[in-house]
Amino acid sequence: MNILEICKKAKAASYELSKLSSETKDNALCRMANALEANVDRILAANQQDSEAAKAKGLKSALLDRLALDKKKVANMARCLREVGGLPDPVGAIERTWTRPNGLIIGQLRVPLGVVGVIYESRPDVTSDAAGICIKSGNAVILRGGSDAINSNVTIGEVLREALTGTGVPADAIQVVSSPDRAVAEEFMRMREYVDVLIPRGGADLIKTVIEKSRIPVIETGTGNCHVYVAEDADLERAIPIIVNAKCQRPGTCNAAEKLLVDKSIAKDFLPKAIAALRAKGVEVRGDEETKKIAPDVKAATEEDWYTEYLDLIMGVKVVKSLDEAIAHINKYGTKHSDSILTASFDKALKFIKQVDSAAVYWNASTRFTDGNQFGLGAEIGISTQKLHARGPMSAQHLTTTKYFVLGRGHIRE
Amino acid sequence: MNILEICKKAKAASYELSKLSSETKDNALCRMANALEANVDRILAANQQDSEAAKAKGLKSALLDRLALDKKKVANMARCLREVGGLPDPVGAIERTWTRPNGLIIGQLRVPLGVVGVIYESRPDVTSDAAGICIKSGNAVILRGGSDAINSNVTIGEVLREALTGTGVPADAIQVVSSPDRAVAEEFMRMREYVDVLIPRGGADLIKTVIEKSRIPVIETGTGNCHVYVAEDADLERAIPIIVNAKCQRPGTCNAAEKLLVDKSIAKDFLPKAIAALRAKGVEVRGDEETKKIAPDVKAATEEDWYTEYLDLIMGVKVVKSLDEAIAHINKYGTKHSDSILTASFDKALKFIKQVDSAAVYWNASTRFTDGNQFGLGAEIGISTQKLHARGPMSAQHLTTTKYFVLGRGHIRE
Repeated sequence: MNILEICKKAKAASYELSKLSSETKDNALCRMANALEANVDRILAANQQDSEAAKAKGLKSALLDRLALDKKKVANMARCLREVGGLPDPVGAIERTWTRPNGLIIGQLRVPLGVVGVIYESRPDVTSDAAGICIKSGNAVILRGGSDAINSNVTIGEVLREALTGTGVPADAIQVVSSPDRAVAEEFMRMREYVDVLIPRGGADLIKTVIEKSRIPVIETGTGNCHVYVAEDADLERAIPIIVNAKCQRPGTCNAAEKLLVDKSIAKDFLPKAIAALRAKGVEVRGDEETKKIAPDVKAATEEDWYTEYLDLIMGVKVVKSLDEAIAHINKYGTKHSDSILTASFDKALKFIKQVDSAAVYWNASTRFTDGNQFGLGAEIGISTQKLHARGPMSAQHLTTTKYFVLGRGHIRE
Repeated sequence: MNILEICKKAKAASYELSKLSSETKDNALCRMANALEANVDRILAANQQDSEAAKAKGLKSALLDRLALDKKKVANMARCLREVGGLPDPVGAIERTWTRPNGLIIGQLRVPLGVVGVIYESRPDVTSDAAGICIKSGNAVILRGGSDAINSNVTIGEVLREALTGTGVPADAIQVVSSPDRAVAEEFMRMREYVDVLIPRGGADLIKTVIEKSRIPVIETGTGNCHVYVAEDADLERAIPIIVNAKCQRPGTCNAAEKLLVDKSIAKDFLPKAIAALRAKGVEVRGDEETKKIAPDVKAATEEDWYTEYLDLIMGVKVVKSLDEAIAHINKYGTKHSDSILTASFDKALKFIKQVDSAAVYWNASTRFTDGNQFGLGAEIGISTQKLHARGPMSAQHLTTTKYFVLGRGHIRE
């Protein structure tokens, strides 16, 4: 099927979806979960094909890990769908109403966006996670995964579509683009007439390509060059576990800290301890000149380092003269994701929270909490690092919009 | 100055702006208004230059009208700035806070977007209107108007920047791109690193170009192929004034109705009256086959007509068999702006409101009310016809976003 047909079908399905009750959608999500479990062997067989092809192609082990499914991962996909089913329906709420002096009654009704496009890389579990959030929020979804996971994605898509039979949710609410062709992906990204938002999920290169090629509104997600700044009055005993947690608890995630900024007044005492704690966890430290004066065996950081999201056990360390310098550094080099200040001072914390231009700003906590579930928002479809529409973890509610309704009694404008 | 420098200065100014109090911003808006009035002769002289050049170029009279300023228009620009100053400050509100089971306190703080880009056509009053809304919402603005209005825009920008001296608002919060070069505009549209949102204001061609060229997130505004649907049970006495008002009260605006859909069961009686009323106001009617059976002297509408925003005294008329057909027609041919149903039935109205996929959906009222002031939202920077971030009239509050703040006491993720 060509991509135009897929988009047209998605748009038609979206109009059907927007009429459905919460019960109908939640029942469909439950059936989708059951279907994943019932078809686990079929899914794993398709995934096996992908994994073998990827090995033959010589893919890196980190990518092979992301690609590989097993029974536990499929069970987890099913659990996610059930969890999303249990969340409140974001659609249908009347946000507010007011009456104008002329008697017109105006209100805002929360409605689905319509058609959501998701472009992602090697993780096939995104296929069902994204489909679940989209159905919950009343949107049709078009899923274009990485070519390495094509058999897995197509099979998961088939299983989910089959599960929709008889639920009231049209099968075309979930469509997987089965062509691995880049030209098809590029054509997809131009379907502004049919697709209301495009969400890229993956590395910086994927996101850059989508921003460059898309004519559909994009929500930029996921790149996280996150900072922890230790102010002069920080509780230094608590600071080390926070830094180690932010860097090491899961270094491959976007909310892991990549940079440590330490106030000059405490650097001499504190830095050797912090560096030792990081090294004990296997972290390679790269320092600026001031850091190297204190810890000469540290590798020198380059200008490039300050911009880099390592997604690895590497941390850039810089000594800063003031809170203002810390804020300016983060706003210059950061990716507007998650940044934390460690301080005993409410004034400093407030200034940091107000002036650091990031989606999530922390006081005395690890950056690792930027996540839909950790924030209590439910499953997420990504973490937005742009400012339009949604900022930070995006859950089902962020895949909705409002429309104005205007109720008159023959009102005309004078 | 090159565009990169302009963008960098805007970004730096935006960080300053985000720290300012409501009083500082409102005082600056008041000074800007005073400065427009004090410099009216200087502004009109610059505008005179533009108008003469435009006449020499042979611009159409509608465009010359939009370009021309006079004392009244300048006074109106000043009034707008004062009005915006009097509105509540959308920035600084804590939208909500909650506590997670682990004790983390999470909240959302409303903050400015940062840097707003506006690309517009011949109306120089947009320069001060847009600047006012941006300052109010704590954003720096970069204004790139049409080349025909270049002297007017540059002069208004100078006057406004001069007015900021001593107010605490940095002059670089308002910058006018003085180069009329298209290549400069295209370079501007790629400045994603510095500009948070780009708002095109103008005709369909301008908006299309911006969507095509921009790498900055765009909010699509303004194209309005609006419909009035007359159901079989409509109050036909009230219907005619609504249709005439929607079409004729100001036909050049985006919320003017362009199409009339009439239910088949009442078409034979109602259409001749409606067509006569429209013709009495000088409207050219273009009808589908069914309409022509009833009113044979009507010009035949083409397929192209159903897609067209005339912005003129022309109206397409179509007979539809049902509410479903009306909804499908609007969703296919409309521009998701403003559409109205005239009916006595709550059920029909509710179905229309839910299923018509437009920013503003009306029951028994003219579409002409889709406007920031008419809705009671204050001055607007445009009417969004897309679904992301803002939908419908966009006022100062829509030029803000939220950031999460997360308050811990040494919290780390397990």
